[in-house]
Amino acid sequence: MKRIGGIEAGGTKFVCAAGTLDGRIAERIEIPTGAPAATISRVAEFFSKHEIEAIGIASFGPVDLRPASPTYGFITMTPKLAWRNFDLVGAVREATGVSRIAFDTDVNGAALGEQRWGAAQGLDTFLYLTVGTGIGGGGMANGQLLHGLAHPEMGHIRVPHDWTRDPFPGCCPSHGDCLEGLASGEAIRRRWQRGGESLDAEHPAWELEIEYLALALANFILTMSPERIVIGGSVMQRVDWGRLRPRVQEILGGYLQLPAILQEIGRYVVPAALGGDAGVLGAIALAAP
Amino acid sequence: MKRIGGIEAGGTKFVCAAGTLDGRIAERIEIPTGAPAATISRVAEFFSKHEIEAIGIASFGPVDLRPASPTYGFITMTPKLAWRNFDLVGAVREATGVSRIAFDTDVNGAALGEQRWGAAQGLDTFLYLTVGTGIGGGGMANGQLLHGLAHPEMGHIRVPHDWTRDPFPGCCPSHGDCLEGLASGEAIRRRWQRGGESLDAEHPAWELEIEYLALALANFILTMSPERIVIGGSVMQRVDWGRLRPRVQEILGGYLQLPAILQEIGRYVVPAALGGDAGVLGAIALAAP
Repeated sequence: MKRIGGIEAGGTKFVCAAGTLDGRIAERIEIPTGAPAATISRVAEFFSKHEIEAIGIASFGPVDLRPASPTYGFITMTPKLAWRNFDLVGAVREATGVSRIAFDTDVNGAALGEQRWGAAQGLDTFLYLTVGTGIGGGGMANGQLLHGLAHPEMGHIRVPHDWTRDPFPGCCPSHGDCLEGLASGEAIRRRWQRGGESLDAEHPAWELEIEYLALALANFILTMSPERIVIGGSVMQRVDWGRLRPRVQEILGGYLQLPAILQEIGRYVVPAALGGDAGVLGAIALAAP
Repeated sequence: MKRIGGIEAGGTKFVCAAGTLDGRIAERIEIPTGAPAATISRVAEFFSKHEIEAIGIASFGPVDLRPASPTYGFITMTPKLAWRNFDLVGAVREATGVSRIAFDTDVNGAALGEQRWGAAQGLDTFLYLTVGTGIGGGGMANGQLLHGLAHPEMGHIRVPHDWTRDPFPGCCPSHGDCLEGLASGEAIRRRWQRGGESLDAEHPAWELEIEYLALALANFILTMSPERIVIGGSVMQRVDWGRLRPRVQEILGGYLQLPAILQEIGRYVVPAALGGDAGVLGAIALAAP
């Protein structure tokens, strides 16, 4: 039986799945992200067991999505040096022998997965964010994935940094105290010398985390006017949504007189529904004929 | 001869024009924004001299653009109290007798004008900003004006406030030191006790202005990935674009390896081309059949 392959290419692991167009996964594997050649070889080995007619790749980045570019399909400016300027689409095509390869960012893939089968069903303008080791964002505007010049890199916006309460300088190699530099899982680990999973609910880490995330959410709402914001990622397992949402309302200051924000924010800022499968399901959706 | 009416409804003045669908203006008038009833009465008097088949209104806001809403066509949360919760579309329809009224934000109107006849021709994902008495933003994503939940209010994002260099607390009634509170023409006037038009080019006001605008532009680029950013408004007449653009590049820190940003930013962050007529031409475009 012909299947669609999905690859969620992450900086920590590659999730591969052979699935169908209605969002069912027949088989799935997780491959730790190692050197590019060895990793792609294991990807190809997995898909060789299935009759795959097309593969969708939802990749960490930044990536080059411009079809006319000589480096289309490449991972470009990643801090993971072995993967910088790596031709991911070309390598997957060569190793698997599958010619039809769709390609987008990991977060645009996850956004598409949530829109087909998860927490953003029926919406045509929404955002998907992931707050894990890093922070990324994607989504749709007017019924199509966000591309424009290239693709969003929402994790790297600047938000006010409260130096008095938070002297940590931020840990983004490119920007220091951008959102990812202040509020990613890696930022929590470096600031407190312990991972977020080991910090209890009353630790001051979480109040700071909520502040930075709420500032970012308010900025995204004011910039894009999304119909919903869906948020996934490991850090969100520990964030108290019951404190995050009112803080977003406070920061907006009643300026947007919209029921979705004033009364129904519990249905407006919501957790991802597909969990760990959002990315790979989105990758499958990217390759839909 | 049948004409299309355009109204750029601003907090300071209403610009009305009778024009054609190819962007030519037959007659134009500016009406200082007074009390709602008197202002609308003068608008109707102007249009009564023309055979108008439809009117587009590009309005200051926030406004209610949701067609199914009982307050569709209203100005909602403006600090101009006489206009708060005012049924602008209803009042114009009643006063002019013209039934076909299109309605959007002033900045979405201006964005549409720039896309048809100005600095954003041929683009389907771009932003239009105006930096004047206030700061507003609109634009298109994937070929349609930005709406989503309601409409963008980009002037109200938070950017890092440099309290050491800039103890001014900001002047936005809703948010204090949001972008508009720090970088609008009104913020310049309040911070320095003089309007920007009277501050010479070496005044420290301009370095601060460039910093806040560059932080905001970087955030918009990272969030939306626009193909271009077009900026109008009175404050931009005084800002040194030759310093603004490199500062945007510095803040992005080489993270986006894109020629448009690294080499061709002079064609990426550009002045509005339609000047004072962008809004009213956009209003006419909104009403295009």
